[in-house]
Amino acid sequence: VGTGLIGASIGLAARKSGVEQVTGWDPDPDALAMAVERGAIDEAAADLGAAVAAAQLAIVAAPVAAISDQVEATLEVSDSSCTVTDVGSTKGAVCERVTQRERFIGGHPIAGSEARGPERATAELFQGATWFLTPVAETTPERYKLVMGFVSAIGAVPQAMDPDAHDRLVALTSHLPHALANLLLNQVGEARVDGHEPLDAAGGSLRDMTRVAGANPRIWIDIFQHNAHELASALAEYRRRIEELELARAASDAGYLARWIGEASLNRRRLLDDVYPNPCDIHRLKIQVTDQPGIFAGITQTLASEGINIQDIDMHHVSPERGGMLELLVAGQEHADEAARLLGAQGYLVTVSAAFARE
Amino acid sequence: VGTGLIGASIGLAARKSGVEQVTGWDPDPDALAMAVERGAIDEAAADLGAAVAAAQLAIVAAPVAAISDQVEATLEVSDSSCTVTDVGSTKGAVCERVTQRERFIGGHPIAGSEARGPERATAELFQGATWFLTPVAETTPERYKLVMGFVSAIGAVPQAMDPDAHDRLVALTSHLPHALANLLLNQVGEARVDGHEPLDAAGGSLRDMTRVAGANPRIWIDIFQHNAHELASALAEYRRRIEELELARAASDAGYLARWIGEASLNRRRLLDDVYPNPCDIHRLKIQVTDQPGIFAGITQTLASEGINIQDIDMHHVSPERGGMLELLVAGQEHADEAARLLGAQGYLVTVSAAFARE
Repeated sequence: VGTGLIGASIGLAARKSGVEQVTGWDPDPDALAMAVERGAIDEAAADLGAAVAAAQLAIVAAPVAAISDQVEATLEVSDSSCTVTDVGSTKGAVCERVTQRERFIGGHPIAGSEARGPERATAELFQGATWFLTPVAETTPERYKLVMGFVSAIGAVPQAMDPDAHDRLVALTSHLPHALANLLLNQVGEARVDGHEPLDAAGGSLRDMTRVAGANPRIWIDIFQHNAHELASALAEYRRRIEELELARAASDAGYLARWIGEASLNRRRLLDDVYPNPCDIHRLKIQVTDQPGIFAGITQTLASEGINIQDIDMHHVSPERGGMLELLVAGQEHADEAARLLGAQGYLVTVSAAFARE
Repeated sequence: VGTGLIGASIGLAARKSGVEQVTGWDPDPDALAMAVERGAIDEAAADLGAAVAAAQLAIVAAPVAAISDQVEATLEVSDSSCTVTDVGSTKGAVCERVTQRERFIGGHPIAGSEARGPERATAELFQGATWFLTPVAETTPERYKLVMGFVSAIGAVPQAMDPDAHDRLVALTSHLPHALANLLLNQVGEARVDGHEPLDAAGGSLRDMTRVAGANPRIWIDIFQHNAHELASALAEYRRRIEELELARAASDAGYLARWIGEASLNRRRLLDDVYPNPCDIHRLKIQVTDQPGIFAGITQTLASEGINIQDIDMHHVSPERGGMLELLVAGQEHADEAARLLGAQGYLVTVSAAFARE
């Protein structure tokens, strides 16, 4: 129900995983036609009732603002044997409002994409992605197994959670960061300092921190409105923490600052723990590169041919004229130094440093 | 004066650029010996007086907290013909306190590095980097030309600015983002949601936004203390903006949210303007990759051999077992689609989308 990017990707993945019959419907006839053309659905239904008439599982992939109504409509026109789920980014409201509570299980795949529409759909969108499911007291094991089995079958990793806890979690890990990025970028963007525009002097830290700023307003206005309560709590707590920092700063409390930075350093390591089991072993190579085809290939080929594994790669592009700085992470000082030597011999300017601050 | 990472890198760059005689001194004898061993200085002086006795230009590269005293000491023991500059991250205090105002010009190279010490020094550290200079009313053109000429000679791009304006600028573009990253990471790190640790569920946006969190406390405590006034203003303004957002949110003011996100989108484009002259033309390829040597080389070589230029490259590493997601930016939809086709034919799972949100 809804054949946009997410709905059509679910259709493609479902058909690929061997689901017998995938029927789709979308209020927008163009989106529906495109879903057929892309092979995302076996059949385009004439209306919602026809779409879910014979369905064992109905997946509502509407915009957040429309999800609750669409879930209700889907429950009404479908058989009581049909289980209904959704893909909205917030779960509290839809799970609270739903009437036939035993037939609905909320869902939320973490499969962000800047793309829109069925023309960009792909069966691989959910490969390895966390897919939150929010069963409630009335949920039966059979229906939960059905949704969980489907989510697993299309490559995602189901994770069960209470609907309100889900909203608190994504408020912290996704909605708060988005809001803070917008706030920061607009503050720097509006500022004028002595005739200079600070935005023009911004370095890598500002660019990293505002990567998600200005994201699709159609999606984000809905999210901010629908997770209002949890986002408000997170923002208020953030504001409280700024005040605490301001007080410590005003009192020149260096001990506070040291503990505060130390805590951030530990949290950063926790964040990267799954990614780099031994972060102290990781070294960063910074390589100045020009903006021309084949540069990356040459560099990565050089390292691969010596058996040096690149753990991570990140390009800080400056301009077409000046090229930029390529950062590679490599495990082991010897590998890092060897890589620097090999690339230095090819004329590259390379620096090596430990990638993560030590205690 | 001070042969740590920055001082020794200046020495290496100066010698490389043809400066006749580079003399160094450091209160730490090990750092001084290492600077000699690295070839960063022609001669290690026995004390500060000996170091600057015959100097035309003295560069003070001490930690921020010690810079003001070290600048004074250097001015006292050097000849009146000697011009003195520094490399501290804040400029207001040192320029205000300095006594022989016509002989001192503040400086601040934007050459961040996680590395420390002369053993990691490199002559290329300042290549293409902005190097702020903060002349004051008493500064003579001759002395300014000397410092500017030196900075240019070692590869940096000098930019003149009022000392207080400099501090306001870096408060916005660097110190505020650092503080906000620490605040965000500690808030998410401390939170517990229904038995879950939100940090463990964090996605790419949180990782990007906290990249600078927990950075070297020795440097950052000093910076937060020395740019206290400007950082306090920036934090208070940020807090005010959160409150404004909270009010708009509480009033369900969707128009405010739309304007706010739209403004962020425009600012994001301004930020990337120099980097991508035609951002709407840039497409993002997301490629699932495993964690093994040669993967990057194979992919980049494939694209290079077809003349497809990679504008930007970014690896989102998940774990050694699961590999991760490689993101490439490519100019032009045709190039992006061709790249996806080529890599798809090699068995990679690839998605393509416009890299930057359109209006």
